Amino acid sequence: MEKLEASVSVDAFKAGMSKLPGSVNIVTTDGPGGRAGLTASAVCSVTADPPTLLVCVNKGSSVGAIFEQNQAICVNTLHPDQVDLAIEFGKSKLGQDRFGLAQWAEGRSGAPVLLDCSVSFDCTVVQRFEVGTHQILICRILDVIISPSASGVVYFDRRFHVLS
Amino acid sequence: MEKLEASVSVDAFKAGMSKLPGSVNIVTTDGPGGRAGLTASAVCSVTADPPTLLVCVNKGSSVGAIFEQNQAICVNTLHPDQVDLAIEFGKSKLGQDRFGLAQWAEGRSGAPVLLDCSVSFDCTVVQRFEVGTHQILICRILDVIISPSASGVVYFDRRFHVLS
Repeated sequence: MEKLEASVSVDAFKAGMSKLPGSVNIVTTDGPGGRAGLTASAVCSVTADPPTLLVCVNKGSSVGAIFEQNQAICVNTLHPDQVDLAIEFGKSKLGQDRFGLAQWAEGRSGAPVLLDCSVSFDCTVVQRFEVGTHQILICRILDVIISPSASGVVYFDRRFHVLS
Repeated sequence: MEKLEASVSVDAFKAGMSKLPGSVNIVTTDGPGGRAGLTASAVCSVTADPPTLLVCVNKGSSVGAIFEQNQAICVNTLHPDQVDLAIEFGKSKLGQDRFGLAQWAEGRSGAPVLLDCSVSFDCTVVQRFEVGTHQILICRILDVIISPSASGVVYFDRRFHVLS
């Protein structure tokens, strides 16, 4: 079984992942650890009943530490018009100022809900699993807000693609 | 905190998830439980080092039970030319016959690797987490096979979209 222990290089991993289309989301939180957010593609559906999704977050960053403390989380899936926001919001030097880049409402959970995105999943974290450098947040969905003009954008091959 | 315990309906969950673009994958396994596979969009990157991804699989189906027994797993991310295969492969009545729909190689893990897909991540399952009806398989990536003609397709708004 020794061959199973050798894995691919980080470069091969990144090259492979560039060919896996990913959604473009701004994931936000608020609570005892303060308000924070990041851009993330590592979001997926888990169970329909109870309505549950997961988000993978790096524990090492300052934002990751805040996610670890808070229960409230909102996954905001971006509209193609918000690609520039995704890039700007992801810049770590911004800190709290990143919330000045867009308009927000307060979700039922208390997490910031991004206005005019395609869909927002307002959630409460119900379980956490640690895997190496990352935590997997299992999130119960309290509220779903769908924009009447919802439209799709994905990240693939190291660039954004608007869905026709 | 009582308000946090009320979650959205299954219909609202499905409507929201239809606006979250998802990758289109055929996930296969082989091992002590036998050979099996299913179509899945619930795949995402976890950590780059060690190279790790996750897949969410329903425990209830016959295929799900086989995934629970096997260590070998391969995530095959489809090329736009394989959309019909995704639909056919997902039909549960097919059983083992579904593997007759396409050509396969054997990955290092022992799982079936789909020929001509955009990228295959051949993996060994290193951890499992249970969340309600589903299991989250944490998979160490042993091998990445990228097609020279890799191209993207996603599922969004209840239909397939080819990336330009």
